[in-house]
Amino acid sequence: MVFKEIIKKKRDGETLTEDEIRKTVEKYTAGEIPDYQMAALLMAIFFRGMTDEETLHLTDAMLKSGETINLNCIGTIVDKHSTGGIGDKVSLIIAPVLAEMGFKAVLLSGRALGFTGGTADKLESTGMKVTLSKKEIEKVVEKFGFSISCQTETIAPADRKIYALRDATSTVESIPLIVSSILSKKLSVNAKAIVFDVKTGSGAFMKTIEEARALAKGLVNVSKLYGKKAGALITDMNQPLGRTAGNAIEVAESLNALSGDISGDLLEVVTSLAGVLYEITGTGTFKKGKEKAEEIILSGKAVNRFAEWIEYLGGTTEPEISKKRLLVKAPQSGYITEIDGEKLGFLIIEMGGGRKRAGEKIDYSVGLRFFKKIGDYARKGDALGEIIYNRGNPEEFKTSFLQAIKFGNEKKSVNIIKERI
Amino acid sequence: MVFKEIIKKKRDGETLTEDEIRKTVEKYTAGEIPDYQMAALLMAIFFRGMTDEETLHLTDAMLKSGETINLNCIGTIVDKHSTGGIGDKVSLIIAPVLAEMGFKAVLLSGRALGFTGGTADKLESTGMKVTLSKKEIEKVVEKFGFSISCQTETIAPADRKIYALRDATSTVESIPLIVSSILSKKLSVNAKAIVFDVKTGSGAFMKTIEEARALAKGLVNVSKLYGKKAGALITDMNQPLGRTAGNAIEVAESLNALSGDISGDLLEVVTSLAGVLYEITGTGTFKKGKEKAEEIILSGKAVNRFAEWIEYLGGTTEPEISKKRLLVKAPQSGYITEIDGEKLGFLIIEMGGGRKRAGEKIDYSVGLRFFKKIGDYARKGDALGEIIYNRGNPEEFKTSFLQAIKFGNEKKSVNIIKERI
Repeated sequence: MVFKEIIKKKRDGETLTEDEIRKTVEKYTAGEIPDYQMAALLMAIFFRGMTDEETLHLTDAMLKSGETINLNCIGTIVDKHSTGGIGDKVSLIIAPVLAEMGFKAVLLSGRALGFTGGTADKLESTGMKVTLSKKEIEKVVEKFGFSISCQTETIAPADRKIYALRDATSTVESIPLIVSSILSKKLSVNAKAIVFDVKTGSGAFMKTIEEARALAKGLVNVSKLYGKKAGALITDMNQPLGRTAGNAIEVAESLNALSGDISGDLLEVVTSLAGVLYEITGTGTFKKGKEKAEEIILSGKAVNRFAEWIEYLGGTTEPEISKKRLLVKAPQSGYITEIDGEKLGFLIIEMGGGRKRAGEKIDYSVGLRFFKKIGDYARKGDALGEIIYNRGNPEEFKTSFLQAIKFGNEKKSVNIIKERI
Repeated sequence: MVFKEIIKKKRDGETLTEDEIRKTVEKYTAGEIPDYQMAALLMAIFFRGMTDEETLHLTDAMLKSGETINLNCIGTIVDKHSTGGIGDKVSLIIAPVLAEMGFKAVLLSGRALGFTGGTADKLESTGMKVTLSKKEIEKVVEKFGFSISCQTETIAPADRKIYALRDATSTVESIPLIVSSILSKKLSVNAKAIVFDVKTGSGAFMKTIEEARALAKGLVNVSKLYGKKAGALITDMNQPLGRTAGNAIEVAESLNALSGDISGDLLEVVTSLAGVLYEITGTGTFKKGKEKAEEIILSGKAVNRFAEWIEYLGGTTEPEISKKRLLVKAPQSGYITEIDGEKLGFLIIEMGGGRKRAGEKIDYSVGLRFFKKIGDYARKGDALGEIIYNRGNPEEFKTSFLQAIKFGNEKKSVNIIKERI
């Protein structure tokens, strides 16, 4: 294989064979293909795209560069993946709910990425152990019916090397490259069924519904080609999800939610995702699954499972939340028409609740609370939200908070579930 | 400047500024931008193209990475550039003709590239010195009115580094990258006027007229933006030019041509290019310039100038041509409809007359002669051409020669000058 011929083939819009893709990943991971040739190929893929079959082969080659887990002997393993957003604590709530519904939910979570939070970071605010071995995951799933743990370095090392190169060469924003990167990690737990929560809007990576739809279709199609049951919801991320954003504060919100005290948008997302899994696994209809999940949440049936799981892994259900608070009041009267999640995400990073560089320490105790959401009316002086800070200038944080919010004269409604793929 | 933002800008179809392009070239040449980022940018340029202004800035930055020559004090410096083909000995003939017409022709020539020959290699078959210093070029131009010498390493080193990367990353075939690569070397002699001979057809790099037109327009537009008088002809390369292809044999053909014994296609190309230079320098009309060049060639006025120039630089006008010959006879009767120059170019390389790898020694004494060209009728058994070989199996060479030739029932005519840009 002369690698520049592979680059040329993709550059000219041809389809690469399974063998060509597999050898590309193997040789690149082994250092036999130089970064500059891989960079040229990635940019050619950015422009020419990949068929679902090519994406499948790329996913599979990256997946096989690392370890996999197979727990199917202990039940119907299901998985849920979110493309990331602000205030997205869905994993924390849905995993124990799915366990309560009879599934075995095995989720691998990442760290905070860009302006969005990371489930592993949120859980770490409790002091619990989030990096688990295969054996530990198996034990936890047997005991609690679910597991959320951190992706380890042994999973899809090829993806890590390729992702670093994409980041340096402006080739991140390519649907087949995003799909293969997500699935090469996701498929390592070998779930029977996966539901994807593809976020779209100001607080998501996919700013438009078209981009979100393309990504959702890619994720579902390639998962199905891989032999998985798969479905996706495109959900709204034009404002933070739920009532809080941060680390410890989101764990607290999740515990409340699992006790039945849950915001409407969060309830809708969690139960709809559960409904999709219920249907695609052949357990029952979407409606039935959604109702079951709702009943579990509102009756508080899964909260003890979640709390005991945190404690079993060494964490506390009352992680420290900073006592320093500043109310943000409406500077004018009107309907809330916009709450820019990306701006708020960067505000949380500024406050120390996220990372500017990989490996930085996080202040888990800071965050934001939202009292008004899009569609709500605020009188001048009404409390819009609260800034929970530790260091820095709270007045500057308040200014940033208010820059994320727009007011208007007409009530705007939000459709939280935009589409099902 | 965060370089990945430059990549993203080009990737998204935006126009890069002069400053961005200049810093890119400077930092890449200095090793401050890694190959993998430059490779991604080159692939983005492949897909998005560049405006003439961007190409100008790229050219200028690469040009300024090296040395330039300025001889304008000694007369009207003109230059001619060919994009390369089989049997293309135009430089050897036109340079002394232009001198005879009163111009100072300063040509920098390359080595053989891919399947095509190189003017510097052809001249080297005479034993003459082809690598000249600035001072030597000046002296030679003052004495003979023209100079043809080899591009040195001091000219446009940035282009050499970028070209090597393009070659490894399948980003060679991009009009703005080809234009800037050619001009960054070409403009180093600071000619007043340049004429481009853009070859198209089976024996050229540009296989189609559309590609040739785009390249010709790029070369002319960017040269003009640089303040040069510039023109281009698109000429046919669907068969070798003239009667021979090789090294020593092409020098012999050039000496004959300058004595008036010249094939029609070669005469037409040389005189038309001279006509373009005559017109764009404001000396007179195209027609008048073409007639002057024709008169000089057919009367043999420039042959002594050429012969004396070779001898002055230590060469002989009778370079050794191998005595081992094999006639190639027509295996059937019919009109010649195709003579594939690329195949014949590779045949010459196979015979030792070209390079498979940079730096290889060439056997200057081998080559090919053509007795029949497209449009000619051949009876079965008629001599089509002759193989001049030294080592290897001549029967295999004959088979390759015949594979390059197609016969048909209808006479096909060739328009040697296809377009003027």
